Amino acid sequence: MPRYKLTVEYDGTPYTGWQSQKDGRAVQNKIEAAIEKFAGERPVIQAAGRTDSGVHALGQVIHFDLERDYDPFKVGEAINFHLKPHPISILTWEKVADDFEARFSAKARHYEYQILNRRSRPALDHNRVWHVMVPLDDKAMHDAAQLALGQHDFSTFRASLCQAKSPIKTLDRMDVTRDGETIFVNVSARSFLHSQVRSFVGSLKMVGEGKWSLADFKAALDAADRKACGPVAPACGLYLTQVDY
Amino acid sequence: MPRYKLTVEYDGTPYTGWQSQKDGRAVQNKIEAAIEKFAGERPVIQAAGRTDSGVHALGQVIHFDLERDYDPFKVGEAINFHLKPHPISILTWEKVADDFEARFSAKARHYEYQILNRRSRPALDHNRVWHVMVPLDDKAMHDAAQLALGQHDFSTFRASLCQAKSPIKTLDRMDVTRDGETIFVNVSARSFLHSQVRSFVGSLKMVGEGKWSLADFKAALDAADRKACGPVAPACGLYLTQVDY
Repeated sequence: MPRYKLTVEYDGTPYTGWQSQKDGRAVQNKIEAAIEKFAGERPVIQAAGRTDSGVHALGQVIHFDLERDYDPFKVGEAINFHLKPHPISILTWEKVADDFEARFSAKARHYEYQILNRRSRPALDHNRVWHVMVPLDDKAMHDAAQLALGQHDFSTFRASLCQAKSPIKTLDRMDVTRDGETIFVNVSARSFLHSQVRSFVGSLKMVGEGKWSLADFKAALDAADRKACGPVAPACGLYLTQVDY
Repeated sequence: MPRYKLTVEYDGTPYTGWQSQKDGRAVQNKIEAAIEKFAGERPVIQAAGRTDSGVHALGQVIHFDLERDYDPFKVGEAINFHLKPHPISILTWEKVADDFEARFSAKARHYEYQILNRRSRPALDHNRVWHVMVPLDDKAMHDAAQLALGQHDFSTFRASLCQAKSPIKTLDRMDVTRDGETIFVNVSARSFLHSQVRSFVGSLKMVGEGKWSLADFKAALDAADRKACGPVAPACGLYLTQVDY
C-alpha cells in the first residue's frame, strides 16, 4: 500500500486537539473524514506531534496508507477540497517509503510560542497569542532558557497525564527574542514531554516579570518535581512550526 | 473642552467599515457607544482613515472632545473595558491641543497589504490576507509600483464613489517585498483616494502573474480612467498601519 506524507497547517482554536476523539471534534477526525470522502476508505493517520486543544500548527507532519495508488498532489488537493470550510490546510504532499513514520522517524520538532506583551488586549491576534500585560524582560527570559539546554530530567515541565516512558529529554534550543510588542520563544528538541513547551514558557514568564531569579528557574528545573513549575502558559500562543526527518 | 487622541487596532471583518452607520455595525459606532457608557456623553469621533468593511487597522488614529477633563490613560482603559468582546483595542491615549484633527492634521498615512501567495488556502490567516494561488513575480510588481510614485492623476485607481475633490495625489512609497509565501505591499502618502491601495494592488497582481507588462501598468496609470484599473483586491488583506502628524 502506498504511504503518503503531508504537511498540515491548522488553527487549533475550534478543535479538541490533534488526536481523534469519539465526538469527532479533533483535527485528526476532520482530516480522516476528508480522506474518506474522496478515497472511500478511512485510514488511521499518524502525526509527528499530538497538539493539545487550542494549539496551532504551521508544519504538522502526518502519514497514512491508502489502498489505491494516487498522484500525491491529487491526494492533497482532494483533502483540501473536502476540508472546507475548516481552518485546516494541507500544504505539501509526497509519497514516501513504507518505513517512514511521521511520529517515530522525526529527528527534530520545532515549536514557537508567541507572547503579546502590552497593556491593551489583541484585536487581530485573539486566540493567536498569550496576552501578558506586565512588562517582561525578554533578555532575562533568554538567559534562564539557556539553563535548560542539554539533557535533563524534565519532570518539572511535564504534565501529569504525560505518557512518555522517561522524563529525561535533550533540549537543543530555547531562544527568547522580542520584536516590538511580541516575544517569541523558539524551542527545538527531538521529542517533548506533554505540555513541556507551555510549562517552560509559564516558568520563563515568572523570570520575565522578575518574580523568579535565574537561580529560581534553575532550582525549579533541578527539583524534577511538577510542583516546582510556574503556571502553565495557555495553548493559544503555541505553534508546531516544523518537523525534521 | 479637552481633546483626546487615541490609536486604535481593529479586526475589520465583522464591521461595515470605520464610518458610523444607522445599523450600528461600524467601528465608529462601537467606540462611540463605549465612550457613552463611561462618560455619559456621545461625542462624534473623527478618524484619520475611513477604512472600508473588512479592512483592518493596526494604527488608526482618532480624536474627540469630552466635557469632562479625564486622565487620558483612564479614557483608554474605560473604552477598552466597554469595548469587550469586540475585536477593537485602544493602544495609546493622550490629550492634544484644540487644533489637532485626526483627519486633517495628518502628514502621512501608511498602509500595508498582505498577499498569501501559495496553492493551499490559509488556515490561520483567513480574513487576514488575500489568498492568490498563481505564483506572483514580486520583483516585477515592485518595478511597476515605482512607476506610480510622485504626483499623478490617479483616476484609474479611484473608486467611483470617491468623494475627494481632486484625483491628483502624491504617492511617496509603494514597496513590494516577499517573505516566504507572503508578499507585502507597503504604501505611503499624505492622503489617498477611495479604494486607492486596493486598486493599486489589484493592478500590481496583473503584473505579478504576467498578464500585464510594466508598460501596461504605466498605460493604465496614464489613462486616468477607472475602466483601465485591474480587478480591485479584496479588503481582507489591507491594514492601516500608521498615521504621522
